[in-house]
Amino acid sequence: MTSADETRTGVWLVGARGSVATTAVSGCAALAAGLLPPTGMVTETPPFADCGLPALASLVFGGHDTATTPLPKRAEELAAQGVLPPWLPTAVQGELAAADEHIRPGGPVPGDRRATEELIADFATDLRTFARTTGVARTVVVNVASTEPDPAHGAWPASSLYAAAALRAGCPYVNFTPSTGLSHPQLAGAARASGLPYAGRDGKTGQTLLRSVLGPMFAQRALAVRAWSGTNLLGGGDGAALADPAAAAAKNAGKERVLTDTLGTRVEGEVHIDDVPALGDWKTAWDHVAFDGFLGTRMVLQTIWQGCDSALAAPLVLDLARLLARAHERGLSGPLGELGFYFKDPDAEGSALAEQYTRLLTLAGRLGGTR
Amino acid sequence: MTSADETRTGVWLVGARGSVATTAVSGCAALAAGLLPPTGMVTETPPFADCGLPALASLVFGGHDTATTPLPKRAEELAAQGVLPPWLPTAVQGELAAADEHIRPGGPVPGDRRATEELIADFATDLRTFARTTGVARTVVVNVASTEPDPAHGAWPASSLYAAAALRAGCPYVNFTPSTGLSHPQLAGAARASGLPYAGRDGKTGQTLLRSVLGPMFAQRALAVRAWSGTNLLGGGDGAALADPAAAAAKNAGKERVLTDTLGTRVEGEVHIDDVPALGDWKTAWDHVAFDGFLGTRMVLQTIWQGCDSALAAPLVLDLARLLARAHERGLSGPLGELGFYFKDPDAEGSALAEQYTRLLTLAGRLGGTR
Amino acid sequence: MTSADETRTGVWLVGARGSVATTAVSGCAALAAGLLPPTGMVTETPPFADCGLPALASLVFGGHDTATTPLPKRAEELAAQGVLPPWLPTAVQGELAAADEHIRPGGPVPGDRRATEELIADFATDLRTFARTTGVARTVVVNVASTEPDPAHGAWPASSLYAAAALRAGCPYVNFTPSTGLSHPQLAGAARASGLPYAGRDGKTGQTLLRSVLGPMFAQRALAVRAWSGTNLLGGGDGAALADPAAAAAKNAGKERVLTDTLGTRVEGEVHIDDVPALGDWKTAWDHVAFDGFLGTRMVLQTIWQGCDSALAAPLVLDLARLLARAHERGLSGPLGELGFYFKDPDAEGSALAEQYTRLLTLAGRLGGTR
Amino acid sequence: MTSADETRTGVWLVGARGSVATTAVSGCAALAAGLLPPTGMVTETPPFADCGLPALASLVFGGHDTATTPLPKRAEELAAQGVLPPWLPTAVQGELAAADEHIRPGGPVPGDRRATEELIADFATDLRTFARTTGVARTVVVNVASTEPDPAHGAWPASSLYAAAALRAGCPYVNFTPSTGLSHPQLAGAARASGLPYAGRDGKTGQTLLRSVLGPMFAQRALAVRAWSGTNLLGGGDGAALADPAAAAAKNAGKERVLTDTLGTRVEGEVHIDDVPALGDWKTAWDHVAFDGFLGTRMVLQTIWQGCDSALAAPLVLDLARLLARAHERGLSGPLGELGFYFKDPDAEGSALAEQYTRLLTLAGRLGGTR
Repeated sequence: MTSADETRTGVWLVGARGSVATTAVSGCAALAAGLLPPTGMVTETPPFADCGLPALASLVFGGHDTATTPLPKRAEELAAQGVLPPWLPTAVQGELAAADEHIRPGGPVPGDRRATEELIADFATDLRTFARTTGVARTVVVNVASTEPDPAHGAWPASSLYAAAALRAGCPYVNFTPSTGLSHPQLAGAARASGLPYAGRDGKTGQTLLRSVLGPMFAQRALAVRAWSGTNLLGGGDGAALADPAAAAAKNAGKERVLTDTLGTRVEGEVHIDDVPALGDWKTAWDHVAFDGFLGTRMVLQTIWQGCDSALAAPLVLDLARLLARAHERGLSGPLGELGFYFKDPDAEGSALAEQYTRLLTLAGRLGGTR
Repeated sequence: MTSADETRTGVWLVGARGSVATTAVSGCAALAAGLLPPTGMVTETPPFADCGLPALASLVFGGHDTATTPLPKRAEELAAQGVLPPWLPTAVQGELAAADEHIRPGGPVPGDRRATEELIADFATDLRTFARTTGVARTVVVNVASTEPDPAHGAWPASSLYAAAALRAGCPYVNFTPSTGLSHPQLAGAARASGLPYAGRDGKTGQTLLRSVLGPMFAQRALAVRAWSGTNLLGGGDGAALADPAAAAAKNAGKERVLTDTLGTRVEGEVHIDDVPALGDWKTAWDHVAFDGFLGTRMVLQTIWQGCDSALAAPLVLDLARLLARAHERGLSGPLGELGFYFKDPDAEGSALAEQYTRLLTLAGRLGGTR
Repeated sequence: MTSADETRTGVWLVGARGSVATTAVSGCAALAAGLLPPTGMVTETPPFADCGLPALASLVFGGHDTATTPLPKRAEELAAQGVLPPWLPTAVQGELAAADEHIRPGGPVPGDRRATEELIADFATDLRTFARTTGVARTVVVNVASTEPDPAHGAWPASSLYAAAALRAGCPYVNFTPSTGLSHPQLAGAARASGLPYAGRDGKTGQTLLRSVLGPMFAQRALAVRAWSGTNLLGGGDGAALADPAAAAAKNAGKERVLTDTLGTRVEGEVHIDDVPALGDWKTAWDHVAFDGFLGTRMVLQTIWQGCDSALAAPLVLDLARLLARAHERGLSGPLGELGFYFKDPDAEGSALAEQYTRLLTLAGRLGGTR
Repeated sequence: MTSADETRTGVWLVGARGSVATTAVSGCAALAAGLLPPTGMVTETPPFADCGLPALASLVFGGHDTATTPLPKRAEELAAQGVLPPWLPTAVQGELAAADEHIRPGGPVPGDRRATEELIADFATDLRTFARTTGVARTVVVNVASTEPDPAHGAWPASSLYAAAALRAGCPYVNFTPSTGLSHPQLAGAARASGLPYAGRDGKTGQTLLRSVLGPMFAQRALAVRAWSGTNLLGGGDGAALADPAAAAAKNAGKERVLTDTLGTRVEGEVHIDDVPALGDWKTAWDHVAFDGFLGTRMVLQTIWQGCDSALAAPLVLDLARLLARAHERGLSGPLGELGFYFKDPDAEGSALAEQYTRLLTLAGRLGGTR
């Protein structure tokens, strides 16, 4: 057993063998080794240089998953799809294998007979064991599991079990998905009482990111948006999960909030999420904005965003893990509204990206200073 | 002769019978009469309510043009193309005819034998006569003429003659085009000495507007833009003017500046401007942004903007005329960098729209207060 | 009462006050008067010059509708939306009013107590009265009413009542919509026995038109389409009708058939139809085709089609009315498979547009000859 | 020395170490070994089963190039860019090395002192040596070198030197590029007299392929195209070559011909080709078609084609080599107009893809029969 080591930080990924987690672990290792530049990582840009964030090389990964394919194998699969560079899985095989050692079975699985309380206790034990074994100073729990359907009233969705375990084990928590997580009504009191910092929810990686800069543009120019319609095509696990209308509904609520917030009014228009297995981990989002200009002239803006979901999410997951770890170290607690920059459905008012970025820089200032 | 009347403000349009000017005059009349909502006019939004801006109903229009088709006829042509509502030319015929009365011949026309000094003097006389005849408290000169080619070294382009006349007649000046205007080296001293406020240059109406919000998004998210390419299709007078490579070069410099400023580095990629007469006053701008995400993953954003050029420009022209008039009333002088929100190639650092909007609001604060 | 006049042909529109019908009647009058060129009318191209088709000036319009807004008023509404040129409603007001005189109440309306048989008989009487009153040689019935939901098993949808009436009154019949019409199982025998020509179903006006040329291209080049996804945005009556999932299902079946037929296999991908009232009669269709090239290389084709639904449909309606009238005159009977060029879900094998065009030319040859 | 072996066929690639050639050789080996399905190869579809085409496994590759990077290395570079599957270069390393053995230095290189006649003779000797050494029954020469600028009047561009050598060595010839090749005026007599079959020019792989199906669609539907504008973004060697306006001009002539042919009239609109090194071998083509529908209604179709240039071209190169070999075996001579399906600027009238495909099937019939 290692003694607590201020220089190492745990990152516990719920959904640790998914595409986002695999990309995050692979990428962290590649960046720490200087094999690739830190494209897409906001915390590696100059404004964050003096924040006292844990170094990428100091992050130790573990997590929960119900899947059993080991991380090195998952990385090869992602490389075959073009999500990771072909040479990367071999180059970081050691780090992937090491992280895989720290992955514990998730749950509840079908037939699982453990009660809610028991599941939470087991997950919390996993977290404590990880911390003890690895000797990390603290562990940030990040939910990157597939979006789950809106739970039946009163039921405990898996995401909330993990969130409860994080609280119990004293871990800062990030919900990168639209799932319930810490937002479960029965967790509100415990979250407040925990003294832990947390953030969420639903990472803003593509279409909504665009909307959070285009919405303000229309508002600032006094152009009247009449309808904002969108279609998302994606394969991979997320495509299949979101083909479930209930899961899609959770996701779309976040997208809509951005428009309503930034335009100052609810606008017409639907959002579709199609599962297109042929696209693999790649997603295409088409947006069609019908707006009126001066004297009611009809105009249209269309955007097409073609990105790799995991590559968009993974650097933000690393950013958030580092920021939460440092926030915890500095004694910050409660919802970190200044992290709205990262989320579709943030803990704070205001969905315009520029303002969110300003607030993020403010947080960076607060995090800086002597360790 | 009317005595100077603090409640009326002159707007002198260089290119007064062009599409932008016709739309501005028609629209101002329609809005003043409550026939249409002020979509697209930033100065009609709440933050500008207490700035002391001249009322739309108080604006009196005149201008220079070498074209002779009267404004009521030009409005009908624009309505036939769908740029103005079909009923509008009839509804505001009186106001259009009144403005047309104040349009004076522009120049120099081919065969014009007047020397530079004579042209400037004549134009300044036109401005003074307009002020005297109409009794306006002040006149803002706005250049909305077709883009002119980069002038030969030392020569006086027409746009600079008009700008010189504005200075001489004591008029605040706005250059809404990429033409030289007040930026002529021989006008620098006079501009400084004039004590007048001025602003420019090149109104930001479409593709560049988009770039000024998308560029910052890529920068804030640490995504590496590798190439930003664009094609603009437009008919109308501007399409024909910009088919001249020299004129297009002037326009493209502004577009490129926005990217270099917001991304922090020069990026690969060309911008084409095609004259497509079939499109009339409508323009389509396609942008293709190739960028790298985490671990070098290749991603693409494409945007398609379909707008009516005159309808995009006209409300900004009205905004600027009102803001400059008020700035003059408040004694502001020199280049108004806070108006960068409106321009591709502004008088101040920083091309990110969100920051420019913040600075515009700051100006609004300065303009407010007791008259 | 006029005696049967071989030089005049009736066109009976089911949905006679809808956008498509109004555009067809307005346009026919404009073309007959030489006010506009016959853009979009296939039967006005050279290969159809010697087919013996009825002249546009010889068409006499009537129809059924449950709506009561008269045609001249409807035309003005469409002109205000930019669907018709602003000057057109006035120019053809006489013809619109004349057609409106021949519009009879449709049904069944809510509370209608007539039995199926009675409704059919009433509609057939309307048709006979129209023929007698106007003295036309024959009347082609064309269904251009809003798409109706798939009927409950055994029930008679309105479209089939009109189709039955057409048979009973001896009228050639065209179903331009995805509604049931003549495809009702209980009409099969009567259709066969009638000796009348008929055609359908579901006019091919936009996205499916494109698919019928792009599908064959992929097949001929041996490119493997992996997913073909689409989203349609449209307002107007059709947008609202198709917001009903049942109606959309009918429409999408036709779209899918084109792909399966031309690609030789069923492909992945959904089609969405969104009601976007802000778009009025304009529709936008985005298609995303993910395909594999040589060695499995992933490639993508996207298309964006922006058209005016009524302007796309109306000339085809006129084409079909003329072709069916002439086919009837020449004694052709049964389903005219050679008209597959016009339909999403045609009466004949083969969905590739080029082949359908060849077959249409063959029909043109058959229709030619001495009257 | 091997005796002439009716079962082996030579394919001599001018530009043998370029991306297209490398992809063709790699792909042929992969397909012959059953490692991948023959996506994109028209000659592997059922209508060509009984044509007597040489088997893929029987093709023997060689060629000319001024570049010296060996094929196995080039294949690795392409795999790194995602043009070839990552595992392919290793899997077909033997075949690539074998082909590389048959690559001879191209020319003229700067400083080359050989006269035109000497260059032709040397290239012809290379072809004869290849045939003798490998014992192939015949060798088809295919030009896949970078597009060269339009030559000065009277000069011999390199492509024509290679074409002359092909004639002299008795080899069927295909010009897959817009370069001059066999179209040089001084080669016309020799080509006619040679008794050899040949085909060209400029492979139809992307934007023009689309235009050859969309153009006929507009024509058949009597829709009036008012402007057809396009922008191509591409990196790789071809992007750099076409950044030369003279080379681009050659390419664009072919694209324009397709529109003029299929629409029956010349239409407005430019085509841009931008070199965007960041895109590597991938190309994006955006097309904007402004057209009028019924009553002059303005409509727009836009297409975005994202493909890998080499993967689009390579299977067609293999198709053409096989078809020309068989045509030679069957004694066909002169320009094979039936191969217009493959070219932007074919040897025969008619640019509509559907008709070209029909003619290709006719050729397939002629090629069939006993060997």
